[in-house]
Amino acid sequence: MKYLVTGGAGFIGSHIVDEILKGGDKVIVYDNLSTGRKLFVKHNLSNKRFKLVIGDVLNTKKLTREMKGIDFVLHMAAHADVREGFKDHSIDHVQNLEGTQSVLEAMYKTGVKKIAFASTSSVYGDAKVHPTPEDYPFESTSLYGATKAACESYIQTYASYYGWKVYIFRFVSFIGERYTHGIIFDILKKVKKNKKVLELLSDGTPKKSSVYVGDGIDAMFKVIDLSKEQINIYNIGHDDILTVDQIVDTIIEAGNIKIKKKYLGGKKGWMGDNNFVHLDNSKLKKLGWKPKLSFKQGIKKTVEYLQSEESKNSLFR
Amino acid sequence: MKYLVTGGAGFIGSHIVDEILKGGDKVIVYDNLSTGRKLFVKHNLSNKRFKLVIGDVLNTKKLTREMKGIDFVLHMAAHADVREGFKDHSIDHVQNLEGTQSVLEAMYKTGVKKIAFASTSSVYGDAKVHPTPEDYPFESTSLYGATKAACESYIQTYASYYGWKVYIFRFVSFIGERYTHGIIFDILKKVKKNKKVLELLSDGTPKKSSVYVGDGIDAMFKVIDLSKEQINIYNIGHDDILTVDQIVDTIIEAGNIKIKKKYLGGKKGWMGDNNFVHLDNSKLKKLGWKPKLSFKQGIKKTVEYLQSEESKNSLFR
Repeated sequence: MKYLVTGGAGFIGSHIVDEILKGGDKVIVYDNLSTGRKLFVKHNLSNKRFKLVIGDVLNTKKLTREMKGIDFVLHMAAHADVREGFKDHSIDHVQNLEGTQSVLEAMYKTGVKKIAFASTSSVYGDAKVHPTPEDYPFESTSLYGATKAACESYIQTYASYYGWKVYIFRFVSFIGERYTHGIIFDILKKVKKNKKVLELLSDGTPKKSSVYVGDGIDAMFKVIDLSKEQINIYNIGHDDILTVDQIVDTIIEAGNIKIKKKYLGGKKGWMGDNNFVHLDNSKLKKLGWKPKLSFKQGIKKTVEYLQSEESKNSLFR
Repeated sequence: MKYLVTGGAGFIGSHIVDEILKGGDKVIVYDNLSTGRKLFVKHNLSNKRFKLVIGDVLNTKKLTREMKGIDFVLHMAAHADVREGFKDHSIDHVQNLEGTQSVLEAMYKTGVKKIAFASTSSVYGDAKVHPTPEDYPFESTSLYGATKAACESYIQTYASYYGWKVYIFRFVSFIGERYTHGIIFDILKKVKKNKKVLELLSDGTPKKSSVYVGDGIDAMFKVIDLSKEQINIYNIGHDDILTVDQIVDTIIEAGNIKIKKKYLGGKKGWMGDNNFVHLDNSKLKKLGWKPKLSFKQGIKKTVEYLQSEESKNSLFR
């Protein structure tokens, strides 16, 4: 099998690439290195089954050239900062939806018929059902969520037009090695800047769920191996739920940090945030998936990584 | 109240405009006349509460100028031919989604906080539940459906960001006076071309539902008057379901046509078509809505209209 991973030098993408190479298959990483890092794939550069192409998914011509002979596309490239869409109404539309259109067109032109797509729990917005099942309707509260929802609809349509097989994964936030943005990153940055007081968005009560990246990758490949529908939609989320305050305490403890917390108040962290994220993962569990790490263990691993030499010498300076 | 209706010179839009003017309010029709017709609003041209602006929704600058002082936008402009998206992958994206983005940006810039949007039963695709309720997830099988689904997600997000009130209507196909495209139109065109044999897509078994435009407009304004949520999503569909063969027979009978039918076969009329459309309208009925015309009566009205002088002298030549 020959895979192409868009965003394959990113946090999640690079772990997918490692997994593919472990299985003996070939892989092309297609990444513009805007948030992806060469560092995350450098251990594979000498592998003959690995190829790194520096390119933007919006460059359909280049992408189409690389798509020739590919069996399976894992489309992970995205604008992943949920907060920015409130101030910039076009960034998610261009990078997520038009990026995905470009991937679909490149596949259509070259006859590739299998795609896995990184969607998000944000498509459910402030869902009124918890844990939220896959057949809950879209109720986006951010343009990040709205554009990911739109991508799903476009992907389903190409699948229906051309008989493709598709895998749509609705992720909660992933944490672990190569983590590059999100609450753990933000908090350690803040602690670096101000060692006395840690100012925090919200009132600390929003409830979140995260999955350790190793467990997330395991979930994806379980679905790809075992799920036999034409259109396969799976939540990837943890049963462990922590409040923002519990998450902050876990980070502080793991980092051996002494600091005074100061919550700025409000039920939401920012415009477009969702104050309770808990996905129903029973569909995934039926395939035999079980996370190896608890949410707290995942946080600890992530803090360790962010304090490691690799991280200190590159992204986390 | 001052309304702006995009696509207000179109089939459904022009009926909305008549209804607004009947109520004593002011209205701007914003239409590029690509499928809309001046003919459909000409009886209002002398009304001081009416203004016609010939413009494209993609022209955000012009649209923003007209949006100033508007209380309520009814966004009906769209690329409405479901079939074309299979051959042209960008037409629905540009005209439906980017057109809607432009409307949302114009509203955002001018502080308009109310919008009604023409969505479609196509967002449900080949739904596995009939009648299909509003909380059924999106499963588009056409780029028309996918882009309308995307519009809904974008609209919900702006509503969430800026506290707007929104009304999303998922229409089955509407029929009646000023009808400009669809199965009744196509069949009468075919009969004109070939008076002996009527060649028909599918095997005649797909099941459809349509609403008479007068009943559809009545439904929309009932929801706008009575539904008090921030985000109001309503199916507008009929309980009457007819097979394509029954629809064809009703058209033939209403038009007093003698012709031999010949079905070309297949479970679907075309790529992206859905072979069973039946929306759950119980939410709408709870507001007291009841269609005055049966599906068959609606077809007869439509055939009468297409054979009328107005139609013969303009669109139906």
